[in-house]
Formats: sequence, C-alpha cells, structure tokens
Amino acid sequence: MKVLGVDPGLTRCGVGVVDGVAGRPLTMAGVGVVRTPTDADIAHRLVLIERGIEEWLDEQRPDCVAVERVFSQHNVRTVMGTAQASAVAMLCAARRGLPVALHTPSEVKAAVTGSGRADKAQVGAMVTRLLRLDAPPKPADAADALALAICHIWRAPAVNRLQQAHAVNRLQQAQAAARARPAPAPVRRTPARAPGPRPGTPQKGTTR
Amino acid sequence: MKVLGVDPGLTRCGVGVVDGVAGRPLTMAGVGVVRTPTDADIAHRLVLIERGIEEWLDEQRPDCVAVERVFSQHNVRTVMGTAQASAVAMLCAARRGLPVALHTPSEVKAAVTGSGRADKAQVGAMVTRLLRLDAPPKPADAADALALAICHIWRAPAVNRLQQAHAVNRLQQAQAAARARPAPAPVRRTPARAPGPRPGTPQKGTTR
Repeated sequence: MKVLGVDPGLTRCGVGVVDGVAGRPLTMAGVGVVRTPTDADIAHRLVLIERGIEEWLDEQRPDCVAVERVFSQHNVRTVMGTAQASAVAMLCAARRGLPVALHTPSEVKAAVTGSGRADKAQVGAMVTRLLRLDAPPKPADAADALALAICHIWRAPAVNRLQQAHAVNRLQQAQAAARARPAPAPVRRTPARAPGPRPGTPQKGTTR
Repeated sequence: MKVLGVDPGLTRCGVGVVDGVAGRPLTMAGVGVVRTPTDADIAHRLVLIERGIEEWLDEQRPDCVAVERVFSQHNVRTVMGTAQASAVAMLCAARRGLPVALHTPSEVKAAVTGSGRADKAQVGAMVTRLLRLDAPPKPADAADALALAICHIWRAPAVNRLQQAHAVNRLQQAQAAARARPAPAPVRRTPARAPGPRPGTPQKGTTR
C-alpha cells in the first residue's frame, strides 16, 4: 500500500509518501512541502495548493490519501486556513476516486511514538528511525506528513477489523432481535395487501 | 457586473446570481442550492460541491464570485464544514481567473437591510424587494447567496475608491519620505560598475 500523507496548511502543506504494509519495514517514496506566499489572497493560495497536491498525486500514484483531521481548538485564524487547505487535499484525492482517511494529531503521535502527547522532535525522531532516514525530514510539516502516512498504514488493518467486528455485531444483534420479537399478529382489517410496506408509509419509527 | 454569490455549507450551499451596477435596479439571473447527503463522507461531499459550483459557473459565466467570509464563532463542527465548502467555492472561481471577494455576514446584512444584526426574515424580505421577486427565495441559504451578490455589487465601488485612496496615500507618503531623505553619498570603493543592481544583489532592504 502506497499512502500519501498530507499535513494541511496554507503557508506550508506537508506531503509525505510511504510505501509498505503493517508489520513489515516501511519505505519513504517521497517527502516535501507545498508552499504558498503569505501575501497572496486566499483563493489564489488554494489554487497553488491544488496544483501542488495534483503534482504529487500524478507523480506518486498513491493507493490512498491520509489527511490530518482539523480541530478548532487553537488559533482560530490558523485553523480556518488549515481546514481550507485540507478541503483542497481531500477534494484532489476524492476526485480521482482515491480513498481519503482522516487521522487526528494525537492518533498520529500515538501510532508512531506510542504517546498521543509526543512533541514534534519525538515524532521526527521516530519517523527517521521507522523509515531508516539519515536525518529527520524538515520542516516539521514534512515529517508530520510522513507520520500520517505511517499511521494510516498501521491503523488501516485495525480500523478494518474494527469495522468488520462492528458489522458482525450489528448483524448478530439484528438476528437476536428478530428471534426475540414475537411473530406478527395476523393482519385483520387490511385483507388484501401486497407484501412489503405501502408506498408513502413511513419506514422508520412505526410501531405496528 | 454579474456576480455569483455563494453562502457556503456542506449540506446546503446557497448560490445566487445578480446582474447590475450600484445605483441602478438589479436583476436576479439565477438562484439555487447545491446539496450534499449528510451521510456521505466529507471528501465525497466536497467533490459534489465542486461539481455543483462548476455547473453554476459554466451556465452563468459571472464576472466575479462573492463568498461569505467564515468565522469560527459558533458551532465548531459546522464552521469546519463551512470553511471547507467555502474553500471549494473560492478554488473553483480562482482557477478560472475570476476575482473572489469575501464579505462577512454583518457586512451583507448591513448592505441589504441597513443593519448588521438583521435577522434571516429581514434579509429575505429585502432581497425580494430589491430584486423585485414575487416571494422570498427559499431556503434561507439561497436568499443569503443573493444578498451576498447584491452586497458585492454595492460595496465594490466603495471598496475600489478606498483602495485607490490608500494607494494614493502610500504614494504621497513614499514621495514625501524620498524628499526628506538625504542624497546618497557618492560610491567610493566599487569604481567600475554597470548601472543597476548586480545579479545576486538583494533588491530589497539594501540601504546603500
């Protein structure tokens, strides 16, 4: 699996590509930053980010794109730009039919360092070790993008298993509920009726 | 001037097109809403918004796009989606070379009702009157998009005058500063030099 990680930002949008599967050594396929000038207007900056991401997608042809999930906890002004840059990254990927995964910063930190509250240096050090690089990628946005891609490769099987488990659970619950439910009383007042709900009958919340 | 106004949102993205100039009666060229299903994932919803906005731009060929400026004051979750939808609208416009203008909700309300704290009904009523419609456009997002376009047409001349005034001011200040600055001392240690800065010499901030 080849994953393109995007650490979104208007001024610096980190991009990192990691190749591999969970449980085997991973390889870095590329790393960099899409930059836009701070004095340009926002619409133009979004166009530059789109072009940059498109170039990365064209060149790397990843199987999946992992984008940092943006929260509105910190600086409000920065967060808006981050949300908008992330929208462009998601759009570029989804437009090509690529699956898009979102991971929170603490999920990423926990995946690569074992702690959801690790600092930038720790993340950089672990990315360097896990990808067998000579030095931590700079700037930090580039290292974070690689961490996102690693996180996605490692979490993907777990998330898939979790989703399967939930699906099995829901199926079993539905089956158990069906067994526990008393057989429907014979219909009386509406003698001739086609099977299935009538058109226009509410499908949910009916307690007949 | 034909302006496409966008009231950004993930679930309902209001779109309204107004034709006219400040000081003359305005005409509505179109109004509608780009909707995306709430149960779709965000990346796919952004693709649907892009497609919707592109269709409006293709059909209406506006001279300019006015988008509501998003603030992070209210519901954090909603605001992220709004910021992301607005990013897509700005991207679609700027990619075509169309100027993009941002107006705050209170600027829009003040422009069409005279009060920055007007409610939805008041905005709808004024949009109906100003565009000589039979009834307020529904949903409110559609009316808001028309209000944005009207606001832009009315504010554009004022904003242009303001920018010109600032530019003149800056020019005058620069001229005054140039007059006040003492004449540069004659160059001594670099006798033979072609006129103009040497290649590689920093162009800005040199105080020779």
